[in-house]
Amino acid sequence: MRILILGADGYLGWPTVMHLTANGHEVMAVDNYLRRKLFNEVGVEPLFEVPRLDKRCAVWERISGCRVPFFIGDLAEWKFVEKIFREFKPDAIVHYAEQPAAPYSMLNRKAATLTLRNNLLVTANVIFAVREFCPDAHIVKLGTMGEYGTPDIDIEEGWLEVEHKGRRHNFLYPRQASSLYHTTKIMDTDLLWFYVRTWGLRVTDLMQGPVYGIFTDESEKDDRLLPFLNYDEIFGTVLNRFAVQAVAGYPLTVFGKGGQTRGYLNIKDTLNCVRLSLEVPADQGELRIFNQFTETFSVNELAEKVKAAGTSRGLKVEIQHVENPRIELEEHYYNPSHTGLIELGLKPHYLTEEVLVKMLEFAVKHKNNIAPDTIYREVRWA
Amino acid sequence: MRILILGADGYLGWPTVMHLTANGHEVMAVDNYLRRKLFNEVGVEPLFEVPRLDKRCAVWERISGCRVPFFIGDLAEWKFVEKIFREFKPDAIVHYAEQPAAPYSMLNRKAATLTLRNNLLVTANVIFAVREFCPDAHIVKLGTMGEYGTPDIDIEEGWLEVEHKGRRHNFLYPRQASSLYHTTKIMDTDLLWFYVRTWGLRVTDLMQGPVYGIFTDESEKDDRLLPFLNYDEIFGTVLNRFAVQAVAGYPLTVFGKGGQTRGYLNIKDTLNCVRLSLEVPADQGELRIFNQFTETFSVNELAEKVKAAGTSRGLKVEIQHVENPRIELEEHYYNPSHTGLIELGLKPHYLTEEVLVKMLEFAVKHKNNIAPDTIYREVRWA
Repeated sequence: MRILILGADGYLGWPTVMHLTANGHEVMAVDNYLRRKLFNEVGVEPLFEVPRLDKRCAVWERISGCRVPFFIGDLAEWKFVEKIFREFKPDAIVHYAEQPAAPYSMLNRKAATLTLRNNLLVTANVIFAVREFCPDAHIVKLGTMGEYGTPDIDIEEGWLEVEHKGRRHNFLYPRQASSLYHTTKIMDTDLLWFYVRTWGLRVTDLMQGPVYGIFTDESEKDDRLLPFLNYDEIFGTVLNRFAVQAVAGYPLTVFGKGGQTRGYLNIKDTLNCVRLSLEVPADQGELRIFNQFTETFSVNELAEKVKAAGTSRGLKVEIQHVENPRIELEEHYYNPSHTGLIELGLKPHYLTEEVLVKMLEFAVKHKNNIAPDTIYREVRWA
Repeated sequence: MRILILGADGYLGWPTVMHLTANGHEVMAVDNYLRRKLFNEVGVEPLFEVPRLDKRCAVWERISGCRVPFFIGDLAEWKFVEKIFREFKPDAIVHYAEQPAAPYSMLNRKAATLTLRNNLLVTANVIFAVREFCPDAHIVKLGTMGEYGTPDIDIEEGWLEVEHKGRRHNFLYPRQASSLYHTTKIMDTDLLWFYVRTWGLRVTDLMQGPVYGIFTDESEKDDRLLPFLNYDEIFGTVLNRFAVQAVAGYPLTVFGKGGQTRGYLNIKDTLNCVRLSLEVPADQGELRIFNQFTETFSVNELAEKVKAAGTSRGLKVEIQHVENPRIELEEHYYNPSHTGLIELGLKPHYLTEEVLVKMLEFAVKHKNNIAPDTIYREVRWA
């Protein structure tokens, strides 16, 4: 299958490039290095240096024999999008090309505007390009479980049949997010759903929970193939960040009561979810929604797990409850459904102590790179 | 009250400027003449020439004694927004500054991108400016009944209490629109709702149905004070368009079966709804939603009403069902609630034969200006 990967330099984009080529697909990679620019803007660095896309592609070609053509450019600009789609008529598009950090989107007005503009215009351009150049192509879009928020009823997989005053209607599950970033993903879904109904596009929207880990079958072959590991509050997902904090001797910063519960998954499962979605595409005119996570944990549970794994390796790990800089429920009902991807064949990798210990050991190896003052930035929502 | 009116040159913006100043409020008017630029782009003209904002303000000052300062500029540009808000610290903002035509948003990629970019970035800038310069100010935003679409259950006023598997949650009413323009209004609501929760803004989102008429207490004082009357398919709302078609001897073009039902209102009621909302503002941290219409009609009913009024004035009016260029249900359940504005004190002006005859007589006066080839453009959704 010819697969265009947008946002191919990212935490998930690059491992996806390798995973799909390793599984026999033909891939073109596109990115504008937005994430790297934002690292510079906010003054953070990943735990270890990650080579640019040209170098990563070269290393991957030497190791795997898979050549991955790539383009650097801004997908919010139609001229660039047009060029990409004319050059590589894809059977499918994996769309990761968004500003991905909730705290970044809440940093200030400029960051908020960048997030809104980038995420919406790129999604719109992808839709318009598919319509114009490859109307049969399947768009696999990364959404987020954060679109649903934390309602007091069960979260279903994308849709909700509502009974009201004796009548029934099947709606897109009503969504309410807790950051601007997550809100742009709601807007993406609305945009995709409108054009699915109007133009008969085929779209899979993957409502993904926070991802952890950096090790995949492909990334483990050479350290230069590992994805970004951010441990700062802005770009680091919570479990990756806690692992580095544990190694740095920096207390695990639990926001507020720590009862915030989310659905998590190992990066290996992200790759499998995306590949499974590509290999069994949505129908023409279908918006297919999967809830993409394997286990739910509260922040307190994650902190306890990291503490236990760290202690078993001789680390002294403290947990510290800090004032919550975000606006979110700290104790809430959470019961999201997630059967679609399992039915497609997903075999989950669960969060075991072994997985955590491997993350901790890796962080120990790079301990000298940790800049503790970049860990907790206290980006305030209000 | 100091009221900033964004989109003050528009079909509703200008009558609102006059109505609020006539009612003792201090108003600043802002527009970028987007609508006029789009008239030129798509090659249409309103039924009669409408003076620019400078001239209209001058005429209105001579007649009413009310001076209205105005600024011409693009509210998608932060620098301009900042200047406006620094200059005129408003108590309230009426936000009409959006690309308002569903068919325009479906014309082509460029028009769609303009709609998405303009509507979202302006709404975001208004939010950021209120946060920075006047956090207590009340934002009155024009939404649309089109955000709800045509679900098979009753449409409530903004919110829906859902019972699911024995538990309950109160959601923003789930929305699904039938044009890109309407979809941007859904996104606006999501954006406003997020920042209402996060920053405690006070917002009223008026889910307005299609408006008809051009006569208001103020606009009738001088023909140069009348708002745009568009009769083309792109910018003309259906009843205004039908009135002109009847006079032009152009069959009333009903799309498909004509059972499409919407909630309509007289332009006089728009002004009163907006004023009432301003005078009894939403609370801090409240997103207040009103469904702003006074009567529901199907397109068939509207066509029959125009035909009857026209016939009574000696016009020969035909009704023609044409293939529907849009994607929408042509027969559907429609039962939207609309009690909030009535409770605030709205006294509706209903669609009587007298109202229609006055519209027809006005169109007869300007019959020579009608360009029949601009009436039906067949902008196709698919």
